[in-house]
Amino acid sequence: MRINERKVNQLRPITIETEYTKHPEGSVLISVGDTKVICNASIEERVPPFMRGEGRGWITAEYSMLPRATEQRNIRESSKGKVSGRTMEIQRLIGRSLRAVVDLKKLGERTVWVDCDVIQADGGTRTASITGAFVAVVLAFGTLMDKDTINHIPINDYLAATSVGILPDGTEILDLQYEEDSKAKVDMNIVMTGKGEFVEIQGTGEEATFTPEQLQKMLELANHGLTEIIELQKEALGKWAPIMEESIMREADE
Amino acid sequence: MRINERKVNQLRPITIETEYTKHPEGSVLISVGDTKVICNASIEERVPPFMRGEGRGWITAEYSMLPRATEQRNIRESSKGKVSGRTMEIQRLIGRSLRAVVDLKKLGERTVWVDCDVIQADGGTRTASITGAFVAVVLAFGTLMDKDTINHIPINDYLAATSVGILPDGTEILDLQYEEDSKAKVDMNIVMTGKGEFVEIQGTGEEATFTPEQLQKMLELANHGLTEIIELQKEALGKWAPIMEESIMREADE
Amino acid sequence: MRINERKVNQLRPITIETEYTKHPEGSVLISVGDTKVICNASIEERVPPFMRGEGRGWITAEYSMLPRATEQRNIRESSKGKVSGRTMEIQRLIGRSLRAVVDLKKLGERTVWVDCDVIQADGGTRTASITGAFVAVVLAFGTLMDKDTINHIPINDYLAATSVGILPDGTEILDLQYEEDSKAKVDMNIVMTGKGEFVEIQGTGEEATFTPEQLQKMLELANHGLTEIIELQKEALGKWAPIMEESIMREADE
Amino acid sequence: MRINERKVNQLRPITIETEYTKHPEGSVLISVGDTKVICNASIEERVPPFMRGEGRGWITAEYSMLPRATEQRNIRESSKGKVSGRTMEIQRLIGRSLRAVVDLKKLGERTVWVDCDVIQADGGTRTASITGAFVAVVLAFGTLMDKDTINHIPINDYLAATSVGILPDGTEILDLQYEEDSKAKVDMNIVMTGKGEFVEIQGTGEEATFTPEQLQKMLELANHGLTEIIELQKEALGKWAPIMEESIMREADE
Amino acid sequence: MRINERKVNQLRPITIETEYTKHPEGSVLISVGDTKVICNASIEERVPPFMRGEGRGWITAEYSMLPRATEQRNIRESSKGKVSGRTMEIQRLIGRSLRAVVDLKKLGERTVWVDCDVIQADGGTRTASITGAFVAVVLAFGTLMDKDTINHIPINDYLAATSVGILPDGTEILDLQYEEDSKAKVDMNIVMTGKGEFVEIQGTGEEATFTPEQLQKMLELANHGLTEIIELQKEALGKWAPIMEESIMREADE
Amino acid sequence: MRINERKVNQLRPITIETEYTKHPEGSVLISVGDTKVICNASIEERVPPFMRGEGRGWITAEYSMLPRATEQRNIRESSKGKVSGRTMEIQRLIGRSLRAVVDLKKLGERTVWVDCDVIQADGGTRTASITGAFVAVVLAFGTLMDKDTINHIPINDYLAATSVGILPDGTEILDLQYEEDSKAKVDMNIVMTGKGEFVEIQGTGEEATFTPEQLQKMLELANHGLTEIIELQKEALGKWAPIMEESIMREADE
Repeated sequence: MRINERKVNQLRPITIETEYTKHPEGSVLISVGDTKVICNASIEERVPPFMRGEGRGWITAEYSMLPRATEQRNIRESSKGKVSGRTMEIQRLIGRSLRAVVDLKKLGERTVWVDCDVIQADGGTRTASITGAFVAVVLAFGTLMDKDTINHIPINDYLAATSVGILPDGTEILDLQYEEDSKAKVDMNIVMTGKGEFVEIQGTGEEATFTPEQLQKMLELANHGLTEIIELQKEALGKWAPIMEESIMREADE
Repeated sequence: MRINERKVNQLRPITIETEYTKHPEGSVLISVGDTKVICNASIEERVPPFMRGEGRGWITAEYSMLPRATEQRNIRESSKGKVSGRTMEIQRLIGRSLRAVVDLKKLGERTVWVDCDVIQADGGTRTASITGAFVAVVLAFGTLMDKDTINHIPINDYLAATSVGILPDGTEILDLQYEEDSKAKVDMNIVMTGKGEFVEIQGTGEEATFTPEQLQKMLELANHGLTEIIELQKEALGKWAPIMEESIMREADE
Repeated sequence: MRINERKVNQLRPITIETEYTKHPEGSVLISVGDTKVICNASIEERVPPFMRGEGRGWITAEYSMLPRATEQRNIRESSKGKVSGRTMEIQRLIGRSLRAVVDLKKLGERTVWVDCDVIQADGGTRTASITGAFVAVVLAFGTLMDKDTINHIPINDYLAATSVGILPDGTEILDLQYEEDSKAKVDMNIVMTGKGEFVEIQGTGEEATFTPEQLQKMLELANHGLTEIIELQKEALGKWAPIMEESIMREADE
Repeated sequence: MRINERKVNQLRPITIETEYTKHPEGSVLISVGDTKVICNASIEERVPPFMRGEGRGWITAEYSMLPRATEQRNIRESSKGKVSGRTMEIQRLIGRSLRAVVDLKKLGERTVWVDCDVIQADGGTRTASITGAFVAVVLAFGTLMDKDTINHIPINDYLAATSVGILPDGTEILDLQYEEDSKAKVDMNIVMTGKGEFVEIQGTGEEATFTPEQLQKMLELANHGLTEIIELQKEALGKWAPIMEESIMREADE
Repeated sequence: MRINERKVNQLRPITIETEYTKHPEGSVLISVGDTKVICNASIEERVPPFMRGEGRGWITAEYSMLPRATEQRNIRESSKGKVSGRTMEIQRLIGRSLRAVVDLKKLGERTVWVDCDVIQADGGTRTASITGAFVAVVLAFGTLMDKDTINHIPINDYLAATSVGILPDGTEILDLQYEEDSKAKVDMNIVMTGKGEFVEIQGTGEEATFTPEQLQKMLELANHGLTEIIELQKEALGKWAPIMEESIMREADE
Repeated sequence: MRINERKVNQLRPITIETEYTKHPEGSVLISVGDTKVICNASIEERVPPFMRGEGRGWITAEYSMLPRATEQRNIRESSKGKVSGRTMEIQRLIGRSLRAVVDLKKLGERTVWVDCDVIQADGGTRTASITGAFVAVVLAFGTLMDKDTINHIPINDYLAATSVGILPDGTEILDLQYEEDSKAKVDMNIVMTGKGEFVEIQGTGEEATFTPEQLQKMLELANHGLTEIIELQKEALGKWAPIMEESIMREADE
């Protein structure tokens, strides 16, 4: 039995609040247990200079934590004057994951800026960011459709992420909260699409290793959790879910 | 008549939500109209090296905006690798204002870190930060009292801030929202204590000037608004308001 | 009685030496007591990219201190690799103040760079910088008139600055030198025009507060001092003073 | 058939030259096809301040490329004044991988600095770095044994890395060279121990996804290649291979 | 007698290996005793913006050391976020020296990037860099001739560098290795052309001075050594040496 | 004939004004023609951490230019966030030169900070800085003698610097002003002691070379000029010149 009587294959309670702030084209507050991330998607009607004239769009992500999102206060990266390796790794992961399901050609010469700002951290901030960012991006495309700037949602599939891991006693578990994460010997982040295909697998032994059998077990846990998360994304998307799904099916037919 | 039928001497609706995030000793979400700032106060049980052994505490403040807190997305200061002049000016103002009412001697060798993170901006972010930060700091002291680390609240008076200004037509107004602020010819921030004394007056003509009479008019508007704001702070502080007031009175008697 | 038998409303001796270095369009060495600042105004025949084609000019200011302008040697900001919050606050203040009296439309698409370099500091370096910078800017415009690049001085009024404050014993004083400034409980910088209107008021309680009556008293001292300083600016400007005043009057008539 | 008639499960020619430069405790030049990396391990007889007195050691890695290691010249990170996200991600990966097989407790209060400098790049620089770094670290421990500073090799197992991927036509391949890597739709780096356990799995779809079956296929290819690479490491280690293996077995018995 | 029985006027063994890495237009590994430097010359078919349209080319050099090129590991300049004064001084010296013999007009609107990366240091890294860089640059021009991009080698003369110095006992010596350099009281770097003319003389007393007679003695030693080094450059250049010499002679005739 | 009818071996008018600002232990304004540099020497009663306990002192120099010291305004290095290669090269030269004549052992555990700030530039700013810095340092030691902190001047000899060069027509000249410097084909800076020994020779062909005979000619010009400059230093030092000379002679006797 885990903290709060969670089962090994049980997610923490997840909520996805939309239209969280008023300025961004898509704005979401995602809570995964005590982890809370503001995910904002902004659309800029141009691409970086090196991509101009190619007819394709671009998505890029930034990730940050409030200094006191954590138990101990962290120094702001703006005060340090540089972004840490961990932050860069996470923002590259978020951007790369989104690019796997956003159709950059159909997006046209636009840039999507995704900002994931963690206001409270309790493990799994990068996977919560991906899950929330996906919803924010779809909603931003919805805003563009409402303004008749685009006439479809340039997305190929759902996208969600979660973590799995192995506790010191060898148990494989789903959706690690901070206390579990800090003592786990293996930590794995999985980004998956609605069709159950992988976008990203990042598994790491922390001064430890894992066998092919343990890998298999963890992949199954992730698949179980992500199916559930994608259902929650659909609910959060509201009217935009069927519109997006129709775009995807039309695409598949062509 | 102003936007939303506000009167010249009328504040925007203000709410102060306490215990907003779980890690900080004091955590507040303040909304002043559409301006929303998370104000977190963290207590560290030591002071910077250059102050050790002096028996005094220290308060310092940091201020930041989410990239999409504004109409247009701003580049993160961590990405730029440096903090802008505007940000530094604001964090110096917040820190200085708090030091006017916190009794650093009574605080003992502790550092109070105040983080003001603007999640949505609509004018007056620096004054909302000061008003919210004051509440967060008192609540952080409350947390320390609950833990029996300190046995009183080392504060001398209430502290709140608002803005006043002069519209292009010459009207003096209270609590400028963004649309007003961007066209105002004079902009003034006032930080005041519960006794009605000034901590800080920063009045600036934007390619314009103002007369002594206009200054007088603006100071009166500020006084009117701040009296109201301090009442809201008292409510937000709940049980800690009378405890703090008692500390202040005891102090005055000595 | 103050240091050197100065009266509470008495300025330190002020000298303004023009044509101090040979390269800048306007170059001034201002001494306010032992505070000495080189104020250079440079004119560039273009504006920053974001302003091109608008037909308006731009003024920007930079401020710096020699490392040993002060009692203790300070680390150079170029060695530290970043400009301090204090420096940024001061250069924003100088630039903003000048923009209140320079007519950017009449200036045309030109940039005025103002460099204030403190070679010796004894309190009041930012107000001395503003007073000296005003003279340097007018002289730079004079150089442009001599070259027939412009045919009038695009200035609306005189501009000068001084400090006022409250000593620990409650006395309000004019033009604080370093020893007074470091122990003052309130410190206020006033930037005023020739017509006696305010451009900027920045009053700060240093771990202290001040009443509306004390504010009034300080404003009167400042007004007294600034009237005198503007007379000294007129003398320093020499032949350019009547030419500038004529421009101002012609402007007022239109 | 691949470039140079390589088979899908065939590694490029690999050489590991030891004692490459004279100063480091362990120095290796690894070539994997045309990818060439200098891997130097330096031992410092102390740990970072925050770890002192804990009796444990520390390993950290840095990674860099000569500007012209690639087809097009890259700007030096020292000239840009900051380390790119990609570089940070790689050096975190190398360090983490090594920590999975180095016994930090047995290492004692020492720091191992691993420097991987790519002098020629043709795909797989991060996995070549890990494979070469492992050899350099063991040799550095050998140098310490020769000096009687330590009396065993504090390593738990062999460690090697390679890449696998999926070509646009769907073929899974082993050990991607640059031309293959740049067009692959899936790219996966695998770090494995001598016992065939995983230390790290990083699989990424580049604007693409992959199925669980494809994942399985790639893991098999990686296992095949890594078994071969570990044999080459044994040869390169020479006399230190049996000494290290003995340490590992002794450890397993306890 | 010096270390390894070297005579006062004897160079260390020098080798110049060409085509060291495959990507650069010119690539050299130069060894001067135990000092080893990779010198790569890259040609870019354009010049920096400020030089466009002038019909002239540009050469610029960068210099760096692997962290463990030296006895003690050095912190990477990319990690520190800035390039040291020593590095900047060396890269300016290399660039300036090359510009004395490369005919920038004949080069046309191209940039030559020279990268000198020290992989092992034992004194004289800057002079070895110049000697090796010259060969790399000529070879890069050879590559351009092979591609018919240019039809001559835009070089006016050979260029080589060495060091001379004075030991504490007053002996003048040629080509200082690290152990000698670290105790020498005078250290002088000489850059010379094939005709025996000086390009650069940098002589420095290290908390010491030197007389005009000692200067004369050192210049003679340098002349002796550089004549020998230029012979080695000719051999390394192979077929390109006579082609270059012919270009030089043709030039002299005009 | 040169500009202003100067002869080839004639220095520009030189003045050395002492006690230029009040805070530094030694403060000098040196003018060499239109080149004007403030040279301040500050004494700190401790050495950097890595030198503590060795009983030796340290001298370090910093060099900077006001933005408008030159014809065109330069961007401040503090604004750029880094110090240029040229600045670093110059500050290293100034520091190294001073260390050749200051007896660091006799100085004791003190640091001398030398700040050379160019307020007006017309060629030869680095050599003027060295000449002025020497005077400022001796005066700073004088201040310490006046305070009885030291009882002698820890200096071994006079120190001065000047430039020589070769004009395009082949004439060798002394003390280049900016107009000459910018067209000279060879530029050489010479730092010399009172005894006529060299501390530093830095000769550079600017896309040009020079023969041994031309070197000889330039060294003679430098010797002529520096003899004259050292006389001016003696005058500027006033009563401290004989005190310093006596220290030097006493030293020589031991």
